[in-house]
Amino acid sequence: MRNVNMPPQVQADNSVIFRIKAPDAKKVLLAGTWPPSKYDFTIPMERKDSIFEVKIGPLPSAMYEYRYLIDGISTIEPGSNLVTRDGIYVENRLMVPGPQADLYDAKNVPHGQVTSVWYPSPILGSERRMSVYTPPGYEKSNKRYPVLYLLHGAGGDEEVWVNRGRANYIIDNLIAAGKAVPMIVVITNGNPNTPAAPLDRSYNAKVNDNIMGAMSSQKFEESLIKDVIPYIENNYRVIADPDHRAITGYSMGGYQTQNITNSNPDKFKYIGVMSMGLFSSAAPGIKYDKDAHLKQLEALKKNKPGVYWIAIGKGDFLYKSAVKLRALYDEVGLKYTYVETDNRHEWNAWRLYLTEFAPLCFK
Amino acid sequence: MRNVNMPPQVQADNSVIFRIKAPDAKKVLLAGTWPPSKYDFTIPMERKDSIFEVKIGPLPSAMYEYRYLIDGISTIEPGSNLVTRDGIYVENRLMVPGPQADLYDAKNVPHGQVTSVWYPSPILGSERRMSVYTPPGYEKSNKRYPVLYLLHGAGGDEEVWVNRGRANYIIDNLIAAGKAVPMIVVITNGNPNTPAAPLDRSYNAKVNDNIMGAMSSQKFEESLIKDVIPYIENNYRVIADPDHRAITGYSMGGYQTQNITNSNPDKFKYIGVMSMGLFSSAAPGIKYDKDAHLKQLEALKKNKPGVYWIAIGKGDFLYKSAVKLRALYDEVGLKYTYVETDNRHEWNAWRLYLTEFAPLCFK
Repeated sequence: MRNVNMPPQVQADNSVIFRIKAPDAKKVLLAGTWPPSKYDFTIPMERKDSIFEVKIGPLPSAMYEYRYLIDGISTIEPGSNLVTRDGIYVENRLMVPGPQADLYDAKNVPHGQVTSVWYPSPILGSERRMSVYTPPGYEKSNKRYPVLYLLHGAGGDEEVWVNRGRANYIIDNLIAAGKAVPMIVVITNGNPNTPAAPLDRSYNAKVNDNIMGAMSSQKFEESLIKDVIPYIENNYRVIADPDHRAITGYSMGGYQTQNITNSNPDKFKYIGVMSMGLFSSAAPGIKYDKDAHLKQLEALKKNKPGVYWIAIGKGDFLYKSAVKLRALYDEVGLKYTYVETDNRHEWNAWRLYLTEFAPLCFK
Repeated sequence: MRNVNMPPQVQADNSVIFRIKAPDAKKVLLAGTWPPSKYDFTIPMERKDSIFEVKIGPLPSAMYEYRYLIDGISTIEPGSNLVTRDGIYVENRLMVPGPQADLYDAKNVPHGQVTSVWYPSPILGSERRMSVYTPPGYEKSNKRYPVLYLLHGAGGDEEVWVNRGRANYIIDNLIAAGKAVPMIVVITNGNPNTPAAPLDRSYNAKVNDNIMGAMSSQKFEESLIKDVIPYIENNYRVIADPDHRAITGYSMGGYQTQNITNSNPDKFKYIGVMSMGLFSSAAPGIKYDKDAHLKQLEALKKNKPGVYWIAIGKGDFLYKSAVKLRALYDEVGLKYTYVETDNRHEWNAWRLYLTEFAPLCFK
């Protein structure tokens, strides 16, 4: 039952031939994150003897995820070891060569270290796990470093910005190119109902997957301020002031970034909201107190963030909520930098946004 | 195309019901690592409407890997986030409750940190990646610690002892129970042809998967002595003497453990060979100089290892090679501790062996 591995063949023009051996299958579809495909928009593959095949593209340079749908069963590529996970989405990775893939590549440059750290969270009542990136040279240096707090979306955990997001290689490459200053990157688990990624919880643990409840509790936000930041500032050589703290996140993490900085207007000089807008407009059932929000934004404005960065793709299902968020900020007079891309609500947006946001920090 | 996730249901008696929705499938098989199954010994599942189902066991408490074979295609469980990887084997994890699973569990005990570290390897001509476990309290202590070097099998990399082997949780649990002393565990990439796990190499890198060539070159062994140990001893608070160095590995890593300690009889007081015997008897084509081997073993004997530990399962395809290794050690008079289990050549052996070997070290 060891299946033949037939990795995708990237052609000279960046078109890609996918092949899979499935002699008994009736119908094989391919699903991937390249434009304009979505997971609910699959590409039929053509049978040639026992092989199903399809050629797509040419594709823009980037990192993509893909999987196969064989007679109704979603499956990764048999025999491939290039697999990443975000939540329950375990998928194969495809790199399409060029400048965009190179941003996310494990290149021959100095690499930082990534550590899985358990830290106490009195706010959430358990030990919790996070990933901490320290830049090249950190261990042998006496220097103090600025810190970027990097948050993920619903369904994710403290591994996804590394595993699928390539955050460590993105920062390595930016530092090596002189585009970003050496920084510590703290990647938390933003779901307050669970302390760690799936394999790093006790097998006896009951899992509470109620993400909306988790988001509305704002307990993670409190924990980031009261548990995570003090732990980082007590255990790493950091510059522990607002000018040397940045925070960004996508989707749920963009909402949490807003909550955290709205409630703590004096703590972060660099703020990035990715693929998220005014949450109440995206989640109409949610309680929303506009006056309270305006008051928070006034306080934030008074503290003059060095960078308030909003990035979203034209194809993002939350696009309209970002329009509303910007309208509100315009109303208040809170200055922001707005970046609009062609993306949907997808990893190729978030990897790109990190590549663009990190260089703006600490300068 | 989001498939329904139907995780295995473990019953009160530790029998397990597996179910998978596959309305269009003709034949669905289950493959798992529980006894006596092997991957080439699959269990047919029975169709009930659109669901295929089978009940197995009761199973002994342990951690198992499993996957499905749907109309000839090997696939992981749709929608499951409990997935581990060893080489190209991406599979689901099943914990069957009880004392054995508890040994490998992420329990509510102090956890060490696991760091992905890039280090220079002049011997192999590149930066290489390893995983370093530091025990609970390491960061805040001034203490120096002993070091266990932990090697993997062919096809593996610096991630598998963590991802599939649960080495960090095994050591956490042993330390918490007072069974092992706090130690640093260094998990290397034993394939000299590749610097890192698949996702952590450049996408442009040519991969050389010739494991036999890699094993016979003995370049990794040289690199462990000349690159890895000096890096660890220069960058971590370790006790840098033979009495505080241990080394063990399974399969290819058991062969490398022999090579390393045979060539460096004065460097490690604690030596563990898992699921490996006399390599020349397992790989008959290989060049073998018995006289040279005997000379090395004489030198090792003179250095009196504190523990020389050999563990293998009765069902291991390398069992006979371990018989021959022991006969040779008996001939030389090199003392060893021999542990024989019911296992095959499998992760449930290696996880168990680590649980038994680590407590013997540094005492």
